[in-house]
Amino acid sequence: MNGQILVVNPNCLQAVTDSMSEALEGFRCEGGPEIRCETLKSGPPGIETQAHVDAAAVKLAEWLGEKPERKRVDALVVACFSDPGVAALREALKAPVLGIGEASYLTAAALTERFGVIAILERSIPRHRRAQRALGLEHKVAGELALELAVSELQDEATTWKRLVGVGTELRKNHGAGALILGCAGMARYRTRLEDKLGVPVIDPTQSAVAMALGLVLAKSDALVLEARH
Amino acid sequence: MNGQILVVNPNCLQAVTDSMSEALEGFRCEGGPEIRCETLKSGPPGIETQAHVDAAAVKLAEWLGEKPERKRVDALVVACFSDPGVAALREALKAPVLGIGEASYLTAAALTERFGVIAILERSIPRHRRAQRALGLEHKVAGELALELAVSELQDEATTWKRLVGVGTELRKNHGAGALILGCAGMARYRTRLEDKLGVPVIDPTQSAVAMALGLVLAKSDALVLEARH
Amino acid sequence: MNGQILVVNPNCLQAVTDSMSEALEGFRCEGGPEIRCETLKSGPPGIETQAHVDAAAVKLAEWLGEKPERKRVDALVVACFSDPGVAALREALKAPVLGIGEASYLTAAALTERFGVIAILERSIPRHRRAQRALGLEHKVAGELALELAVSELQDEATTWKRLVGVGTELRKNHGAGALILGCAGMARYRTRLEDKLGVPVIDPTQSAVAMALGLVLAKSDALVLEARH
Amino acid sequence: MNGQILVVNPNCLQAVTDSMSEALEGFRCEGGPEIRCETLKSGPPGIETQAHVDAAAVKLAEWLGEKPERKRVDALVVACFSDPGVAALREALKAPVLGIGEASYLTAAALTERFGVIAILERSIPRHRRAQRALGLEHKVAGELALELAVSELQDEATTWKRLVGVGTELRKNHGAGALILGCAGMARYRTRLEDKLGVPVIDPTQSAVAMALGLVLAKSDALVLEARH
Amino acid sequence: MNGQILVVNPNCLQAVTDSMSEALEGFRCEGGPEIRCETLKSGPPGIETQAHVDAAAVKLAEWLGEKPERKRVDALVVACFSDPGVAALREALKAPVLGIGEASYLTAAALTERFGVIAILERSIPRHRRAQRALGLEHKVAGELALELAVSELQDEATTWKRLVGVGTELRKNHGAGALILGCAGMARYRTRLEDKLGVPVIDPTQSAVAMALGLVLAKSDALVLEARH
Amino acid sequence: MNGQILVVNPNCLQAVTDSMSEALEGFRCEGGPEIRCETLKSGPPGIETQAHVDAAAVKLAEWLGEKPERKRVDALVVACFSDPGVAALREALKAPVLGIGEASYLTAAALTERFGVIAILERSIPRHRRAQRALGLEHKVAGELALELAVSELQDEATTWKRLVGVGTELRKNHGAGALILGCAGMARYRTRLEDKLGVPVIDPTQSAVAMALGLVLAKSDALVLEARH
Repeated sequence: MNGQILVVNPNCLQAVTDSMSEALEGFRCEGGPEIRCETLKSGPPGIETQAHVDAAAVKLAEWLGEKPERKRVDALVVACFSDPGVAALREALKAPVLGIGEASYLTAAALTERFGVIAILERSIPRHRRAQRALGLEHKVAGELALELAVSELQDEATTWKRLVGVGTELRKNHGAGALILGCAGMARYRTRLEDKLGVPVIDPTQSAVAMALGLVLAKSDALVLEARH
Repeated sequence: MNGQILVVNPNCLQAVTDSMSEALEGFRCEGGPEIRCETLKSGPPGIETQAHVDAAAVKLAEWLGEKPERKRVDALVVACFSDPGVAALREALKAPVLGIGEASYLTAAALTERFGVIAILERSIPRHRRAQRALGLEHKVAGELALELAVSELQDEATTWKRLVGVGTELRKNHGAGALILGCAGMARYRTRLEDKLGVPVIDPTQSAVAMALGLVLAKSDALVLEARH
Repeated sequence: MNGQILVVNPNCLQAVTDSMSEALEGFRCEGGPEIRCETLKSGPPGIETQAHVDAAAVKLAEWLGEKPERKRVDALVVACFSDPGVAALREALKAPVLGIGEASYLTAAALTERFGVIAILERSIPRHRRAQRALGLEHKVAGELALELAVSELQDEATTWKRLVGVGTELRKNHGAGALILGCAGMARYRTRLEDKLGVPVIDPTQSAVAMALGLVLAKSDALVLEARH
Repeated sequence: MNGQILVVNPNCLQAVTDSMSEALEGFRCEGGPEIRCETLKSGPPGIETQAHVDAAAVKLAEWLGEKPERKRVDALVVACFSDPGVAALREALKAPVLGIGEASYLTAAALTERFGVIAILERSIPRHRRAQRALGLEHKVAGELALELAVSELQDEATTWKRLVGVGTELRKNHGAGALILGCAGMARYRTRLEDKLGVPVIDPTQSAVAMALGLVLAKSDALVLEARH
Repeated sequence: MNGQILVVNPNCLQAVTDSMSEALEGFRCEGGPEIRCETLKSGPPGIETQAHVDAAAVKLAEWLGEKPERKRVDALVVACFSDPGVAALREALKAPVLGIGEASYLTAAALTERFGVIAILERSIPRHRRAQRALGLEHKVAGELALELAVSELQDEATTWKRLVGVGTELRKNHGAGALILGCAGMARYRTRLEDKLGVPVIDPTQSAVAMALGLVLAKSDALVLEARH
Repeated sequence: MNGQILVVNPNCLQAVTDSMSEALEGFRCEGGPEIRCETLKSGPPGIETQAHVDAAAVKLAEWLGEKPERKRVDALVVACFSDPGVAALREALKAPVLGIGEASYLTAAALTERFGVIAILERSIPRHRRAQRALGLEHKVAGELALELAVSELQDEATTWKRLVGVGTELRKNHGAGALILGCAGMARYRTRLEDKLGVPVIDPTQSAVAMALGLVLAKSDALVLEARH
């Protein structure tokens, strides 16, 4: 047993969790920690307002307490770009708790001077701005633009792809973004294609948080090796 | 072949590179990218002044150009806490270039409200402060304190350990640090012990940068899987 | 009928609401808006952790929806220093929503260069710091110190008074605070005494939010007068 | 007698003071403090340049000293958006001194993430920006735009109204302002109409400062009640 | 005629102006601009409060208008550390207007990471902090400490010197100041001695503003040379 | 002998050094310090990338060590807008070391609320932004625009002049710049003409650094005078 990273999808849609888990396939390596994705069944179907964020936070706290093994994980990743419940979970858990919103901003800041953010909805942008400011990374945000697509349009890959390219190009060319963040947990499947198309790094937030979690867990196992030798 | 992460130690001491490579053992996983550590043979024996940082930057640029395969890596990690040459290498390389100083600050910011930094030398603190401010993370630094040990003392593990515990305790208790960064590439072997002793996460900067690099490389391979399925 | 200000106490203790209402007696003026205080009966008994804050936020959202007249108020004041639910309530209500934490920081900033904050518990200080930074008023905080009294001690007025004077004096003399904020909804009864004792303005957060709300409601009624005349 | 709030109009135009006093009618409540408006007869006819601000500051200091009862007020409000003399008056007076510029920024920050400012003249904007930055609220200013009307045009209500609607719409729609500040002491009569027209809170600066002053005075009287009961 | 720099001492003491002029002796060079020092005879005897600053600002505006040649200077230096009237004079004069407070902060920032400020009086420190923040140089202030000497003590050179050394040593050693600013127009005569004693640059504010003014004037004359040649 | 200011041009072009020296003619005054300009013969022919900056930094450190008299100067000015090697030279030299980039930003901040920067190349702007932020003067930058001229075009004075006027006008009118900085060491000859054309101060960075250096050296000589008299 090499540790466990638990990724919780705070909306109740199993399909989103499945696609998230697929996007993390590459992070599951022989001898590395188990990466398990769970759906917060009591969560809202989507997290689009501050009320959804608050509701998800409370449900996550309950969920954590429901099964003792959830508190025994080596790292917990909350897979919603608005980072619901992350502050409270940190008070309840000894292990590291990572929010994918925060992780993506911090990863982008490690790659470039200024990055862009692609939001799904215009109305989420003020909420994201609060998070960017709280971290101290406001000055690194080249711009944030919304796809502003209806749910039905989002389900159409061709339409979504066209908007992603449009908005990403605008952020890269006119705002000077040196990297782009997909501002939502469910767009990993466009990551590589968009990166190839636009020629700048594109960050999937769930992947960036799991990468950090993986590092923290692997560092631990490695330490044992070092201890043994020295 | 699953990609390659190249970690370059910008000081010329092979022993430091070897110990670094050992500390990264846990990050080498079956099916994951190769993690290769190289010594910058033309580098200074230690990087303690701004002149050393500048010199290492130039030597790193030359080193990068010497062998074409170095430019073909999937991620480059510069393993010195002062991040020499990182800005210039980013201009020269398409692949992501990570500095371990920056990566450690950003990783600490993903874990806690305020973190502490343990420097080797007092005189490096203003240089570190410049980097913290450049990132925008000044407000998250609970404090930075130096071990202020002579080279001979640093070679004595018992003395170093005692100082690490002293300085770390001061940062945690009196400065309110919720995590600690080892402000130097060569102290990974104390990481777990210090974490266990002090009860807060302790971050080794090389590990935090390699974790980010690993994430970026694994994300890529994963994307192929996704592409295939969709 | 001249409008209504609804003050909701997000903890479930009616005694706290009663004392709050008493402290607002002076704000109820002939011809002015009704100031009504309600207890969030489903709220936690005290709000001391981020989990309590999140829980209160959700309960407040439910509470708002329970009775249609709650949405018809002219201003809503959330009377907990951690401002639970304020962001979400703003999305749900057309009328202004004021958090007493924010209102107290903003009122203090209107009075002095640098103010001090008296917290009940040490562990709330990082949470408060997040709020101060979010507003942009970090640079105006001379310091924040906790009473750090047990619940039983808090119920003893003599002990509480002694600590208030001690901590307040420290903030005024050693930190240079030109005004003090009582960092909790339930300490209004010490306000005048402390102001007289220490010689600097002492701000009760609930009063400062209700003052702002009163201003917004009175401005409206006044506008009618103006409209009529012009 | 329940205390007194003295509002001083630092320009010498009695008509401006009268209209100010009218706009405060709603704030005068039975049993509440007297709200008295005075004209600074020695003041400049308008405050449009930094020289006017400096001149008004000096005249205000003289004015304060002229009659001893002026120093006995419970709160003093300086009713010019550039807050002339506020820093000096705070040194001379024990009672709170509120500047209407500061009070309006702080009140807007209590209502919304980002607010807009409607200036009369373009050339005042840099002066306002200094004040916004001094408070730490720069990041909350969605934008500031000037009416840029000549004095004769300002006297024409229809023209002024049209410009107010144009500039306000621009700030709300294109700059994302969630509230608007009327950046001048003499525009209260447009407040309600503009609020109704644009659907976001519109703040009259004099009203916002008087609301804060009212709160501070009412809190005091209330404290007596509390003292008596406990 | 090679241009003229006019230095105005905004307090009414001719002795202060004389000593200022002496301290500028080295800046008067053959072929360079005339450096003329004038006393603001209508100014207050000392500038210790915000009211003094405001009064001096108004008197300076009047003074400027009194003689047309004052508006024909090539640069104007206001020689009081609180920079009275500088913002207004900039609106009235085409030529550059330099405040010695601002100039000293900016010069110190060109020399070192963090500087210390030696104030005369404790109560001026909040006023200075406003200026440091307005410039954006707060983060470069290692600390500010006051001599806190009575006027009679200030006239005693031995006592003043002893306090300067004490306060300067504290700023250098315990606050990490890499340069020191004499926070008052009248202490130039201690500059070299203090620099020699403490081993860090010591900045006299009047000299730093005149140096900038000199540069602006000399640049102009030089341009003629260049024009001629090219 | 009255001291010496050494200005080093870190690119290897003697013609640039010569034109620099000419632009400093006005700063050489009878009885004042010698102002000597040297070419860094080992430097790159131009400094356009971060790699050039790093290379110049190392060459400057070597250059400083080559001749003992270089360390005996009274002030050293590094005449490249990217300030290569300045941090390291400060560690190696007791005398003040001034970077012309920093000096120009600080001088502009002494003259106006918001200034504009004219870059040669678009790709240098992120590098400049890092420096502006490091100083804390980001909020004073009204905008930065690039001439974006090819080397051959830069050699054509008419073309360069036209672009300078175009870009300068844009910064002044649309960005509200109250002063302009020539963001390159080699454009002094356009300074006066541009200032006259645009009606705002135009700052040549080398001149602004030499002005500061001159001030520091003259202050010293002056001190001797004062010492003698007192």
